[in-house]
Amino acid sequence: MKITIKKNILSEKLNIISKAISTKNIIPVLAGIKLDLKKEGIFLTTTNDEIAIETFIDKSNIKNIEEEGSIVVPGKYFLDIIRKLEDKEITIQTDGLRVIISTKRGEYSLNGINSIEFPNIKFDTQEKPITISQPLLKTIIGQTSFAVSTQESRPVLTGILFQIEDNILQCIATDSYRLAKKIIHLDNPVTSKINIVVPGKNLVELTRILSDEEKNIELHIFSNNILVKTDEMLFQSRLLNNSYPDTSKLIPEEFEVTIIKDLTEFYNAIDRVALLTDEKDKNLVKMEIEGTTMTLSSTSQEIGKMEEQLEIEKDKEVDMKIAYSSKYMLEALRTLKCDKIEIKLNSEIKPIIIKSTEDDNLIQLVLPIKTF
Amino acid sequence: MKITIKKNILSEKLNIISKAISTKNIIPVLAGIKLDLKKEGIFLTTTNDEIAIETFIDKSNIKNIEEEGSIVVPGKYFLDIIRKLEDKEITIQTDGLRVIISTKRGEYSLNGINSIEFPNIKFDTQEKPITISQPLLKTIIGQTSFAVSTQESRPVLTGILFQIEDNILQCIATDSYRLAKKIIHLDNPVTSKINIVVPGKNLVELTRILSDEEKNIELHIFSNNILVKTDEMLFQSRLLNNSYPDTSKLIPEEFEVTIIKDLTEFYNAIDRVALLTDEKDKNLVKMEIEGTTMTLSSTSQEIGKMEEQLEIEKDKEVDMKIAYSSKYMLEALRTLKCDKIEIKLNSEIKPIIIKSTEDDNLIQLVLPIKTF
Repeated sequence: MKITIKKNILSEKLNIISKAISTKNIIPVLAGIKLDLKKEGIFLTTTNDEIAIETFIDKSNIKNIEEEGSIVVPGKYFLDIIRKLEDKEITIQTDGLRVIISTKRGEYSLNGINSIEFPNIKFDTQEKPITISQPLLKTIIGQTSFAVSTQESRPVLTGILFQIEDNILQCIATDSYRLAKKIIHLDNPVTSKINIVVPGKNLVELTRILSDEEKNIELHIFSNNILVKTDEMLFQSRLLNNSYPDTSKLIPEEFEVTIIKDLTEFYNAIDRVALLTDEKDKNLVKMEIEGTTMTLSSTSQEIGKMEEQLEIEKDKEVDMKIAYSSKYMLEALRTLKCDKIEIKLNSEIKPIIIKSTEDDNLIQLVLPIKTF
Repeated sequence: MKITIKKNILSEKLNIISKAISTKNIIPVLAGIKLDLKKEGIFLTTTNDEIAIETFIDKSNIKNIEEEGSIVVPGKYFLDIIRKLEDKEITIQTDGLRVIISTKRGEYSLNGINSIEFPNIKFDTQEKPITISQPLLKTIIGQTSFAVSTQESRPVLTGILFQIEDNILQCIATDSYRLAKKIIHLDNPVTSKINIVVPGKNLVELTRILSDEEKNIELHIFSNNILVKTDEMLFQSRLLNNSYPDTSKLIPEEFEVTIIKDLTEFYNAIDRVALLTDEKDKNLVKMEIEGTTMTLSSTSQEIGKMEEQLEIEKDKEVDMKIAYSSKYMLEALRTLKCDKIEIKLNSEIKPIIIKSTEDDNLIQLVLPIKTF
């Protein structure tokens, strides 16, 4: 293969596919980028065990396509060289298994791998994909992915559940100590029900590539994988095939008391009071509601005691004491973008529900820790 | 003790002394901040094995000084609490060994340590200290500290040598593979010769506190320590007492050839060519001068080969091949702030000298690696 190409365009596309370059060195070809030069342009592909990404540079952006062909280049080094080059145009050609990058200044050659050794990935698409706005998908992932489990003991909890029925998309993540639930109304209803679990960390990688541009992207869902298609790339992730636990009864419908408080004030108070807590004591913070005063506190035998009072509003004359992980509470609060929130309580051993006063589509649940 | 104080002023001073809070937990009192309240104001002191820092907040910045007294508070937690408080004014008082920080919102109490347990540090000063500009001292440290040894096998090489005679200050750092030398003309000549070695990493900590404000600061030099005095603080470091090797004959006075090249072009070319190199092969880059062309190259059997050509100027019709550590060369080049540099060579086994074409006061030396 031999092409002359604009450095900036190549660099941009490489940034996208770099997210699927394997950093483990067990299978060398997975640490590579497959370059596949055809008459119509060049395809760039990467894959690790979890995801595969493909981008394409059209021939209109390439100066010369002299010979078609394909090869796998060492990903990290290829990326680094292209990024550091100051030239506007670069030539890439193969000489057997050597890949030679050349510019006016110099010549940089890398030992490639025969593309036969690269996994044969099919990026299948559907006739009628689901369409969703790109920034909205980023938001959904950001508001739920933090709550997935990081432990492999229940693999399905390391994923985010996507359920679609008619035009309602419901996303759920839980590690069994807290739960995040987001509901979206899709523009077009789907014909068959969808119920898939996508690995959380793969979706976090996806958010690093998606732009904030207000554009629709396509979701193509199959039994074993999901393909996300944008103008820029194809992103494919495996699915988790275990069945997701039924969480529908976890979120109570009625509450003993609903507290209304300014989000930032509540967040900053917990952030301060939690200063002495650590993972060892489950980041425990106590919250006591008495009249219109909320007292937040934490104690460490060794270091000291933090206590803060906040003025609150509430819907009923009910007082309550409850304790929870400040880490989980802060992570849940960070997903909310609003002025005021509702903190909904039933008892010291029942789930705490947090949501914006103005939006019912995002619900954060944190389980309390029994201490009183 | 009991005081009411502006949060911002306390926070500012705490940032300064935080650099000497020990992060090792072997001696708990060294992880603390000594608060010492006197009629004239409050002294804040920290120390680890290497450095001690003291700052002072004058009574004019304190609302109430109710009881004099002193205590040691846990450094990290005290800092974190003060930083995170949103109140403008805070009250700090002791109750036995408890330190209570209180604001309108809350009360944060920390278990303190009796100040008797805190090391008794004397910040001695001299009648006639050496004065030097604050940003200049920062620059000197930045241009030399990177070249100190990180190995404890020759402890004296982990320090920077400060030699003063009359009004000439000479700073030298070397790890025996490269050397950095900076010469400064002081405004006032010193009466007695000075020859001290200050631990490099302590000076790097100092640069993190010094501001860029064009102000003179004082150096008070004793046989075992150096005290740096600014308007804001006292910073004391131990000295290394071993004698520093004589480096005066290391820098040649005559050269076979001097190459003149644009600094940025030379830096970027090495940065690219060095991409395949690693510590294992000493980050080896080859440099071949033939006529007015410089060829930089590196080879990795496994990964590939990088090669780049640069146009150069030189003072004599001498060609040369030489190889060196790209890491050491890039670190040396980063200290230079100029357009053009001189690269001075004698032979493939003699030191390489790098300096600005316009400034003789900073000299960087890199030893070559024999390969040709």
